[in-house]
Amino acid sequence: MDNTKFEFKRAAIIGPGLIGSSLARAFRETGIVERLVGSDCNADVIKRAAELGVVDEVAKGFASAVEGADLVVLSTPVGEIGAMCDALTAYASPGALVIDVGSVKGAIVAAANKLRDDIFFVPCHPVAGTEQSGPEAGFASLFKDRWCIITPLAREDAPYKAAVEKAVALWESVGANVETMDAAHHDLALAVTSHLPHLIAFTLVGAADDLESVTQAEVVKYSAGGFRDFTRLAASDPVMWRDVFLYNKDAVLEVLGRFSEELAVLQRAIRWGDGAALYDAFSRVRSLRQAIVEAGQETATPNFGRDQEEKT
Amino acid sequence: MDNTKFEFKRAAIIGPGLIGSSLARAFRETGIVERLVGSDCNADVIKRAAELGVVDEVAKGFASAVEGADLVVLSTPVGEIGAMCDALTAYASPGALVIDVGSVKGAIVAAANKLRDDIFFVPCHPVAGTEQSGPEAGFASLFKDRWCIITPLAREDAPYKAAVEKAVALWESVGANVETMDAAHHDLALAVTSHLPHLIAFTLVGAADDLESVTQAEVVKYSAGGFRDFTRLAASDPVMWRDVFLYNKDAVLEVLGRFSEELAVLQRAIRWGDGAALYDAFSRVRSLRQAIVEAGQETATPNFGRDQEEKT
Repeated sequence: MDNTKFEFKRAAIIGPGLIGSSLARAFRETGIVERLVGSDCNADVIKRAAELGVVDEVAKGFASAVEGADLVVLSTPVGEIGAMCDALTAYASPGALVIDVGSVKGAIVAAANKLRDDIFFVPCHPVAGTEQSGPEAGFASLFKDRWCIITPLAREDAPYKAAVEKAVALWESVGANVETMDAAHHDLALAVTSHLPHLIAFTLVGAADDLESVTQAEVVKYSAGGFRDFTRLAASDPVMWRDVFLYNKDAVLEVLGRFSEELAVLQRAIRWGDGAALYDAFSRVRSLRQAIVEAGQETATPNFGRDQEEKT
Repeated sequence: MDNTKFEFKRAAIIGPGLIGSSLARAFRETGIVERLVGSDCNADVIKRAAELGVVDEVAKGFASAVEGADLVVLSTPVGEIGAMCDALTAYASPGALVIDVGSVKGAIVAAANKLRDDIFFVPCHPVAGTEQSGPEAGFASLFKDRWCIITPLAREDAPYKAAVEKAVALWESVGANVETMDAAHHDLALAVTSHLPHLIAFTLVGAADDLESVTQAEVVKYSAGGFRDFTRLAASDPVMWRDVFLYNKDAVLEVLGRFSEELAVLQRAIRWGDGAALYDAFSRVRSLRQAIVEAGQETATPNFGRDQEEKT
């Protein structure tokens, strides 16, 4: 992509939270967007985004943000996308490229299929983030070396195909690797690598919070034994995650069934004192982390590098 | 503790892996041990520990390591401690302080209660570690600001009480905070904060490894969605963890029951599309991480600080 000229005149950032504000910041670095206009249903959030310089201009609302925009970024919880598609039909400019960043794609594709033909919605999911939320949490390098999955609509027209190419180039310009797949496969793959891990983290932290026999002070003190790892995912935005589970119900329940099956096997091995079965199960999974490190998706430093003390 | 003179003339490090070699390295820094003698059932491990300078001397075996030692550190998997207590009765010097570092304490206390009265076994559990194993993985600051739990035997004699005080001072000298409790409560508290989290991590990674519909390459690529966090705990030493589950069966099964109950509630909320229940459950657990950060047991940096890129 040639970054010496603006690729987009006016981008509407709808929901400049962690992901939306990171993308806006990345657009500033690459220079592909001339003017960034923001909107958020929470007046405080959009005010803070403007104060941080994430957007150049605060729109009066969704309609005025998207009017005249040649790029619309929907970076809201998944549950809001349906209503936004209705509003896009009414207010978006002909030829606009619309992308979202939602963690579920089947429901988004269904909503996007109802849009006018001269609006080009390319469903996207950058697999990147932190446990923090809000415009303050964003940073331009968030997408660097992460994967962004695109699940294009079933449109064969040349303008739509060009819009998909433009979306690919956009994500590559902010440092992401792009993969294209169908929405159903995305929703199953991400149920495995993201949705189930979050559900399990919420569950484990919730179960510990609920005990009478072990105090919360003890949980905090001895959390370095492993528990603290789970609190990172469990600190993620509850609205975003509520919507993921509401809109990707079937795939999540399917992979949860596989998890429960595996857990039952290990539970029985513990009850029976079957050391060989436990050893086999634990040995088998050990190597997967190394593959993730080698793929550039994880640090090789022990404890995620969280301990800054010098090794001796 | 006065560090200008040696507190111990000869320390036997039995099993100089991650924890044992870290303690040996910390002893060198504090200078409380004059001579470090090592032993391991794996000849390669003890050879590497000697090459790294973790120990001054390689003993011919367990018996010759502990003979003449005024400090014995048992840093082996929990399952080996019983047999070692039998051997200690035969070979340990009168007056020796014996500590272990095992993640389970009830079984250790039971074994230690059979020792000769002139051997002073103080069961210890430093709640510290990384996902790595072996003498190369150790470092002197591993215990700094972490908690070490001591579960003393039910002995009222003055020499034993003095030995407990010596063990407390030893852990404090390497930077740990010391807490004393009974073994049964330790085993329940650590089932919550360490054993169950590891079991769940092994389970989740195992379940993902086992799918036909999502490839391992996809799991690796999209692991930044949350899955990669679990691979850290799942990369831990399988022998150590096999023994934890064999020797802390009852407490693990009890807290696993609580986990499964919580999971069933969330699973039903997903199936029913009960967004309010999901939101409440996710919101409730969000604050626990902050408490852990404030207690100095976790980094406040997003993503554990694993992403080294500059924020903009």
